[in-house]
Amino acid sequence: VFSRGIQTVTLIPGDGIGPEISTAVMKIFEAAKTPIQWEERNVTAIKGPGGRWMIPPEAKESMDKNKIGLKGPLKTPIAAGHPSMNLLLRKTFDLYANVRPCVSIEGYKTPYTDVDLVTIRENTEGEYSGIEHVIVDGVVQSIKLITEEASRRIAEYAFEYARNNQRTSVTAVHKANIMRMSDGLFLRKCREVAENFKDVKFTEMYLDTVCLNMVQDPSQFDVLVMPNLYGDILSDLCAGLIGGLGVTPSGNIGANGVAIFESVHGTAPDIAGKDMANPTALLLSAVMMLRHMGLHGHAKKIETACFDTIRDKKVLTKDLGGNSKCSEFTADICRRVQDME
Amino acid sequence: VFSRGIQTVTLIPGDGIGPEISTAVMKIFEAAKTPIQWEERNVTAIKGPGGRWMIPPEAKESMDKNKIGLKGPLKTPIAAGHPSMNLLLRKTFDLYANVRPCVSIEGYKTPYTDVDLVTIRENTEGEYSGIEHVIVDGVVQSIKLITEEASRRIAEYAFEYARNNQRTSVTAVHKANIMRMSDGLFLRKCREVAENFKDVKFTEMYLDTVCLNMVQDPSQFDVLVMPNLYGDILSDLCAGLIGGLGVTPSGNIGANGVAIFESVHGTAPDIAGKDMANPTALLLSAVMMLRHMGLHGHAKKIETACFDTIRDKKVLTKDLGGNSKCSEFTADICRRVQDME
Ligand SMILES: CC(C)[C@H](C(=O)O)[C@@H](O)C(=O)O
Ligand SMILES: CC(C)[C@H](C(=O)O)[C@@H](O)C(=O)O
Repeated sequence: VFSRGIQTVTLIPGDGIGPEISTAVMKIFEAAKTPIQWEERNVTAIKGPGGRWMIPPEAKESMDKNKIGLKGPLKTPIAAGHPSMNLLLRKTFDLYANVRPCVSIEGYKTPYTDVDLVTIRENTEGEYSGIEHVIVDGVVQSIKLITEEASRRIAEYAFEYARNNQRTSVTAVHKANIMRMSDGLFLRKCREVAENFKDVKFTEMYLDTVCLNMVQDPSQFDVLVMPNLYGDILSDLCAGLIGGLGVTPSGNIGANGVAIFESVHGTAPDIAGKDMANPTALLLSAVMMLRHMGLHGHAKKIETACFDTIRDKKVLTKDLGGNSKCSEFTADICRRVQDME
Repeated sequence: VFSRGIQTVTLIPGDGIGPEISTAVMKIFEAAKTPIQWEERNVTAIKGPGGRWMIPPEAKESMDKNKIGLKGPLKTPIAAGHPSMNLLLRKTFDLYANVRPCVSIEGYKTPYTDVDLVTIRENTEGEYSGIEHVIVDGVVQSIKLITEEASRRIAEYAFEYARNNQRTSVTAVHKANIMRMSDGLFLRKCREVAENFKDVKFTEMYLDTVCLNMVQDPSQFDVLVMPNLYGDILSDLCAGLIGGLGVTPSGNIGANGVAIFESVHGTAPDIAGKDMANPTALLLSAVMMLRHMGLHGHAKKIETACFDTIRDKKVLTKDLGGNSKCSEFTADICRRVQDME
């Protein structure tokens, strides 16, 4: 496990509760003797040559060098006029696959107990193309862009993911009955790629049908792959099934191992700096990161400690139904990690 | 109630189980002495002058005359090359508002007990514009069209609906953080219309956030208004919360009282003709229709009988968890309706 020595990861603590939950993750990583050192970088929008919005060069260089990043929540002031920094990061590093495993957490009660699925969202195009026009006064069009290349790439990622993670089926989610050409292209690429993965079951389903079936019986789903906007919707819906964005990890994956793992909840300015935040989503995102880096032993240890703390119910943050502080919750996980030595 | 005498309604029984569940509704309407007579029309795609797909003239004329229609499921053979007849009907009569009340049904167990909301979907434009292009080989664009007029019209409908149905809040559902111009226009119109309905609370929420909150606590929602595709998704999601499309009514409303009420489940070819279908969704759609026509007494009576039969659990179709035939379920509702005389 330690064969590659200590690796450096770019840490983007983010805004609001970001710094607190980042500190929590760093403490737990230290307790678990994870062979990782952090390179902290700030990400705020800056205007580059030609007026293009970009992320600060120090952050860009750090990511280019380390390839792996961990990121807390970033605020998105629409008024500021720049695009969401979350989106800009995905775009800057061509992180084309947004991966969100949703697994029911023992001891954290929701109406569902048997969720165990992964949404894989195309992260670069579709409804997020950013191309919009006023045709005439009062008539606006937004363009949804679907390409063969991005569709094939995400389909391949989904099938590889299924194969490498002992999952048995991939469902392509679409509205090709309505968007026959664009979703039709996406679907066709999924079907083609499926031909090369005969060991993985392939099904296709309308987005509306997926939503309906999802809330009726999520256990029927395994890996789901879909265009950008559908993934935005479905990943949040699925997060809701297991307890919300506070406990749901996420990874944005690009080519050649480049990846940024992030908690997708907000910056929670109301509780920022009060030692009340729940670091679970960022911690579980960091666990995904460890697996991505091949550090499976450390990943398992930290994940187990986190779930044990939650199942035990004695030291929980407020949003999880407890009365403990972020630092106490963190300390409980650290203790469990150390006890496993 | 009988003041306007007997009214004629266009009945489109539809395909698969359509005729059976239509018969069920007609029987129950007869038992309830509903002052309605039916004009049955077939709807299959035909090619008009210039190669345009249209609905048969007899169906069109009937609807033009009666203004009100009730419709079972229609099959959509994509291979046939014509658009969905469901969509063509909405388009032909400019049925701009798709209204789906979702209310938890006592005695029909789902993970949720307190759903009581209405989705109001813009039914004519958005992602359903049907405009798509291949830009270059392997690159496709679909156009989402949002107009000021359609946005204002649906927003007005939603607020009127809230006011007329003793509902207290309207939530506009959007992704204006991503589609700033198109969803931005939709949202702006909702805000403007809200100014004229100070008695109704107005909120706005991202679609992904709505999905997440919906599965965590649907009771927080009341009336939701949104562009076409979001409505397609959210109405199915909400139907799932209360038991699925087999129990969820739907209405497509146009100007000047024109409306078609429909069950939105499929044609269920596997059980068609076997007296096994569940007529609830079509029946509750017919109840919506009665209210639309001002026949509130008959609506209440039939609705109560239907819910009593379901709550009683003795005579249920298979999909509702029972062993009874469609005709037995229907007879039980008829008996209850007659007992109320
Ligand atoms: C922050 C926002 C732009 C983003 C999105 O819409 O993709 C978020 O909802 C997400 O899912 O990561
Ligand atoms: C039949 C289909 C075209 C339709 C849609 O996508 O709108 C259906 O899903 C609906 O919700 O009525």
